[in-house]
Amino acid sequence: MANEISSASVPTLRRLPLYLHYLKQLKEKEILYISSTTLAKQLKFEAIQVRKDLAVTGIVGRPKIGYPVSELIKKIERFINWDKTMNAVIVGAGALGSALLGYTGFEDSGLKILSAFDADINKIGSVIHERPVLSLNDLPKYIKENNISVGIITVPASSAQQICDLLVSAKVKSIWNFTPVVLETPKNIIVKNQDPIRGLAELTFRLKHSK
Amino acid sequence: MANEISSASVPTLRRLPLYLHYLKQLKEKEILYISSTTLAKQLKFEAIQVRKDLAVTGIVGRPKIGYPVSELIKKIERFINWDKTMNAVIVGAGALGSALLGYTGFEDSGLKILSAFDADINKIGSVIHERPVLSLNDLPKYIKENNISVGIITVPASSAQQICDLLVSAKVKSIWNFTPVVLETPKNIIVKNQDPIRGLAELTFRLKHSK
Repeated sequence: MANEISSASVPTLRRLPLYLHYLKQLKEKEILYISSTTLAKQLKFEAIQVRKDLAVTGIVGRPKIGYPVSELIKKIERFINWDKTMNAVIVGAGALGSALLGYTGFEDSGLKILSAFDADINKIGSVIHERPVLSLNDLPKYIKENNISVGIITVPASSAQQICDLLVSAKVKSIWNFTPVVLETPKNIIVKNQDPIRGLAELTFRLKHSK
Repeated sequence: MANEISSASVPTLRRLPLYLHYLKQLKEKEILYISSTTLAKQLKFEAIQVRKDLAVTGIVGRPKIGYPVSELIKKIERFINWDKTMNAVIVGAGALGSALLGYTGFEDSGLKILSAFDADINKIGSVIHERPVLSLNDLPKYIKENNISVGIITVPASSAQQICDLLVSAKVKSIWNFTPVVLETPKNIIVKNQDPIRGLAELTFRLKHSK
């Protein structure tokens, strides 16, 4: 098991959804096979990188024909766990929380955001993109009753740790953190930080050195 | 110059905003020096990693005293170009675009989002978080007149490439892409992909293997 984990680098994991997105378009067009060179060209990766990335899923390409599209989709989905449904809640029904509720990109991923939670009584009881906004007081009970494995945090930074503690004590397995706060969690909790400010430094640094 | 670029890894660049955020809190509390071990403990990094990360900025810590807080803030800001103002526009005034307009995390970064653009006549003329929503037709002229160096794309995936082409032809230097589309751009354009779906695969993969 440990081997399998270390066999996929973070950059590979970040590219797999892009392959998946493109492969599904091919499948819709009833294209049965795709070569690593064509994939590389379309996604602007190197062909050698494509072969290395896809090898982690266990797929075997056929010489001169390429990868079978349907099988590759299934193998990627299985590899990154997108063949399962993972229930999630969003805590923080502000602008970012609402945007994520309306985001259509999760359709392929197995992530099901069931509800949003907020402390603001003006928001509680409302519906955002067909999901109810519930009271923060009901969060622990809801998590236990709905098999929630992902807690998405979109509250202001000043409340992030408190919400994280609440999610952890209610036994979510993972936290998707959209705040800039470095969260304190027990070691068994999976935390993925998604604050855009982290990506911005990459862009601005390259902008400086491109002149 | 090439040496300087290669001396900062992407993980380091992604951590620098977190140091900055924390250091500014220290400065507000009028704390003058901070050790690498304290920084490591607070941000949950390894002390050796903290020293390596901060070394890229050219900062020199004092034995037994630590790093001078104000100087370290300045050096990080200069290193990632956050000591300059970079003007930006958002294209796509939907839920995600609105969320980014309301995001307070950019305050420290030098990124100034001046306006949003949209093709929807129901949105054009409105104001979101104090920024006007302008017509897409006015985008090229606006970019040239307002020294816009960052184009932020938050349109639906199906329009992303078209908007990217428009931004490139209007001579933005960089694109911050919040869509899942792999954009086709000339080599001199800096593209940073920020679609949350890429981060989700990291989380769900680890969730699978943690059981």
